[in-house]
Amino acid sequence: MNILIIGGAGMVGRKLAERLARDGDLGGKAISSLTLYDVVEGAVPADAKVPVKIVTGDLPAPGEATKLVAGRPDVIFHLAAIVSGEAEQDFDKGYRINLDGTRLLLEAVRHAGHTPRLVFASSIAVFGAPFPEAIGDEFFHTPLTSYGTQKSICELLVSDYTRKGFLDGLSIRLPTVCVRPGKPNKAASGFFSNIIREPLAGAEAVLPVSEAVMHWHASPRAAVAFMRHAATLDTATVGPRRALTMPGLAVTVAEQIAALRKVAGDKVVARIRREPDPFIEKIVAGWPPRFDARRALGLGFAPDASFEEIVRIHVEDELGGGIA
Amino acid sequence: MNILIIGGAGMVGRKLAERLARDGDLGGKAISSLTLYDVVEGAVPADAKVPVKIVTGDLPAPGEATKLVAGRPDVIFHLAAIVSGEAEQDFDKGYRINLDGTRLLLEAVRHAGHTPRLVFASSIAVFGAPFPEAIGDEFFHTPLTSYGTQKSICELLVSDYTRKGFLDGLSIRLPTVCVRPGKPNKAASGFFSNIIREPLAGAEAVLPVSEAVMHWHASPRAAVAFMRHAATLDTATVGPRRALTMPGLAVTVAEQIAALRKVAGDKVVARIRREPDPFIEKIVAGWPPRFDARRALGLGFAPDASFEEIVRIHVEDELGGGIA
Repeated sequence: MNILIIGGAGMVGRKLAERLARDGDLGGKAISSLTLYDVVEGAVPADAKVPVKIVTGDLPAPGEATKLVAGRPDVIFHLAAIVSGEAEQDFDKGYRINLDGTRLLLEAVRHAGHTPRLVFASSIAVFGAPFPEAIGDEFFHTPLTSYGTQKSICELLVSDYTRKGFLDGLSIRLPTVCVRPGKPNKAASGFFSNIIREPLAGAEAVLPVSEAVMHWHASPRAAVAFMRHAATLDTATVGPRRALTMPGLAVTVAEQIAALRKVAGDKVVARIRREPDPFIEKIVAGWPPRFDARRALGLGFAPDASFEEIVRIHVEDELGGGIA
Repeated sequence: MNILIIGGAGMVGRKLAERLARDGDLGGKAISSLTLYDVVEGAVPADAKVPVKIVTGDLPAPGEATKLVAGRPDVIFHLAAIVSGEAEQDFDKGYRINLDGTRLLLEAVRHAGHTPRLVFASSIAVFGAPFPEAIGDEFFHTPLTSYGTQKSICELLVSDYTRKGFLDGLSIRLPTVCVRPGKPNKAASGFFSNIIREPLAGAEAVLPVSEAVMHWHASPRAAVAFMRHAATLDTATVGPRRALTMPGLAVTVAEQIAALRKVAGDKVVARIRREPDPFIEKIVAGWPPRFDARRALGLGFAPDASFEEIVRIHVEDELGGGIA
């Protein structure tokens, strides 16, 4: 089995690659080749049991997508994107990478003619306020950003190319991935991870919103599991509606903090500093707090067990089990 | 006021042009210039009170959209499309005209920088079965054709370009236009018009489905009224969700026939021949029968009063008041 990860140097791409390379198989089928494609150079996972190719390039450049699928990958994970903030600031760049890049990929796959499974990483940014209390599987696309618009359009394209038999696609709307490893970043959603990751590492973190704020989370491990399951499930049971909201955990910031306390104690929790930021509070108020991900649950996608488990996963996978 | 109709030689485009040219104004503002653009040559309406330019061209050809908006039209009606059946048969052509053509138009408008009102003719083909009994304003895009996919994508683009302030757009999902003038055509929906138009003209018409079939109709006159209202309404009251399902009439074939009988009598109705066609019955079963077009009604879009009125409109506008 020949696997291609587009966006293989990103956070989820890297973790997915590590898991696949370590397993050596996907859904019981041996992996013969794993290609990690990104605009920046990816890394060969340690202890890889399979040959890993690192390729860098610019997906929407002429001929690039065709070259990329010339090896006729059986499974393509397409995780590459300009993120929300940048796509909003640079309109042309966002459409070029997020829409044209994806469309050129779909066209290249269509002309290669081998009908691979394509797992497209979509986003809950396809939804914008106002919403119902829990967004169900039949709520309409209401993006309030260019990024969300581009993801919505790609979902529609993946469904149409699938319906026409050019590929076998699934669009997977990931919850906010938490705890995100790495350094604190300027993303408006960054604090959801910062308030867990930084205190666990002995550093202070700023909480800019009320503890009553609810949000939709999945661990990096759950995100990787969604991808792997999407690559192997029987799509005959999915039907023509190929975009699926993944099951996350709807928890308040207060519940996040309570879970952190349970795992790491009061000393760690004391490193969270409350510093309300009306700008961030306003952005977050426009985000969907909760989904009813019934279809995905019925198709075997599983959420994390609890936010406490999400914290423990971070301690295990990123901190080698230790807390500062 | 400078007005551009793209698709100005099509059925709705032509009727819209006739109305605007006859009125000489739109929403109380005098029309200084009316341009009818299409791939085939349009016609200057009889008794035009305003200068009419006829332009032919291929919208997605390089430079074409830029040339088209160089005159900085205040209102652009974009009605041009490859129809459903052809877009399904010729995948590349459908995407080229229906998606690329529209996107190039939006880009040209963005770069012209004058923020015109843009009225985009979308379609209830953005929805595909299964649906609720009446499709509300928050039901999701579930196209089951490439045409419906292309219309869905363009709706998303119109909303995003509007949100960014590049134009002031509205996507108008038209009901099936009935009674469609002209010759019977091979479209699966053709019989809805054929069974009214042909008997009124003294000819026989085939009814291929059960009289219990319900469908969503608007007269050509209502379609033109939707377009004119969309060009003039205060979009500040619309908000960021710029796609609107137009109010139609949900009537069964039996109700259509009863209306025809009321207007034209038994002799005319007797020209309808029942000849069930399982192929057409199956296609029609996948179409939405009824909508709850609450938002559009609240914004002042008005449906035809009754199917009887729809029949009378055809007799007045197409037959000069006479019945064969």
